[in-house]
Amino acid sequence: MSESMIIASTLDELYHARQYLDGPVGLVPTMGYLHNGHISLVRQAKMECKNVIVSIFVNPTQFGPNEDLSNYPRNMEQDLRLLENAGVDIVWTPTSEIMYPPGYQTWVEVETLTKPLEGSMRPGHFRGVTTIVSKLFNAARPDKAYFGQKDAQQAAVIRQMTRDLSYPIEIVVCPILREADGLAMSSRNTYLSVEQRQAAPVLFRALSTAKTAFDDRERNAEKLRQVVKDVLSAEPLARLQYVSCADYDTLEELDVITGRALLSLAVFIGKTRLIDNIILG
Amino acid sequence: MSESMIIASTLDELYHARQYLDGPVGLVPTMGYLHNGHISLVRQAKMECKNVIVSIFVNPTQFGPNEDLSNYPRNMEQDLRLLENAGVDIVWTPTSEIMYPPGYQTWVEVETLTKPLEGSMRPGHFRGVTTIVSKLFNAARPDKAYFGQKDAQQAAVIRQMTRDLSYPIEIVVCPILREADGLAMSSRNTYLSVEQRQAAPVLFRALSTAKTAFDDRERNAEKLRQVVKDVLSAEPLARLQYVSCADYDTLEELDVITGRALLSLAVFIGKTRLIDNIILG
Repeated sequence: MSESMIIASTLDELYHARQYLDGPVGLVPTMGYLHNGHISLVRQAKMECKNVIVSIFVNPTQFGPNEDLSNYPRNMEQDLRLLENAGVDIVWTPTSEIMYPPGYQTWVEVETLTKPLEGSMRPGHFRGVTTIVSKLFNAARPDKAYFGQKDAQQAAVIRQMTRDLSYPIEIVVCPILREADGLAMSSRNTYLSVEQRQAAPVLFRALSTAKTAFDDRERNAEKLRQVVKDVLSAEPLARLQYVSCADYDTLEELDVITGRALLSLAVFIGKTRLIDNIILG
Repeated sequence: MSESMIIASTLDELYHARQYLDGPVGLVPTMGYLHNGHISLVRQAKMECKNVIVSIFVNPTQFGPNEDLSNYPRNMEQDLRLLENAGVDIVWTPTSEIMYPPGYQTWVEVETLTKPLEGSMRPGHFRGVTTIVSKLFNAARPDKAYFGQKDAQQAAVIRQMTRDLSYPIEIVVCPILREADGLAMSSRNTYLSVEQRQAAPVLFRALSTAKTAFDDRERNAEKLRQVVKDVLSAEPLARLQYVSCADYDTLEELDVITGRALLSLAVFIGKTRLIDNIILG
């Protein structure tokens, strides 16, 4: 299974191609419009698994009614070229009609971890994420699945779901890939105008400034949040939606950092919503 | 894998034993206290699959607060003997702590099909059923899974869940097994006193009388429900909870039967709640 990449669209095509994979299978779920962050997940999967499946599906159920589903960037031709070059065995590109046929009525929900942060800003988002990821797991039956630390809460939610639903799947979370100026790679960066793109590194600058304070022994969570706010308020194109300093495992907001913490934020640059995070400790 | 039956308790024991199964796998989920109805599912699985896994787990999340979880009958020793005789490869007997560890927070829900009938009488029941069956599917990765027609709505809900969540699993629903006097086999029959046991065949007699009317061309659903009520009202030990004449696929109540219909009922005999059903057309 290394010469030619199989492109599966229907479930039967995927099941059929999956049957012939003869070793550990790594799955990399994506919404396409692939960048180096995605490719780093594929490379990690290639290193750890004999076979790699990548799914490309812009999942409608994880977008809110006022979000960017219809505008979400797509470039299937380029995605397939990148994945073929990366040595992927199977690319699965289902349609919405295949994933959510008429009469569809089943949902997978993680209750507690989905409440704060992205969950509070994007109602229903994580129900869409856990449902589609569960479907991808069921259909592709991987041994390992790869997600980016950029979506930190998503990674935590999927780890919880995987454990709770007894999947024999190891969740591998890979580090954030950044542009030279620190902006976390994201398909949504393409929405930014030239001027907005120049302002966008402020997210990572704010996180890094707080990280420096943490490394200088600041353990008061509210003071670290304030550092983030101060850096962001100096950038007129940026509008902070939330900044969080939370326990890494439970995502509960902290007063004082004692163990590992997740410092994360969501920022609007114009109409584009960007998220980023950094791990403390 | 035919000489000796493996008994797995933890997830790791199951995953490990599962790895060595080298052909199609059939799964028979049970709550134990096995009767001939269960064994008929195992036999069907043995005929169709090279390997058979049976799970025994009295799933707490599908019992309501006022239901019979703590009294539910158990006989593990006899169950294991029956399954070994039936040629089962793996018996999986997890504990509640394994299936629902501290911090557990993930649920699988089927929305529409779970609303009427058993769903309306037993709030939360089907959420517990679909969650545990999904966990069994994930952990055992079967090719086919076997359920009894006795729990007709459960079979419909699991078929829907399996399709919706993209499981590459075929759901096989096997006919109801009955005692000589017509009573549908059920672990709960053991709750009945001698007198109650003598009254219990009234469920099947009521369904059969309505079936005779259907075979004599009665297509008015309300008239068929009335036939059931009339037969039941003649049995002083029986108290009808509901009788339904619904579309076989959607479980929506019918006025007139045109296609395949499900005639089903729930009856209390003393404190014991029994269900039964018959397919019309």
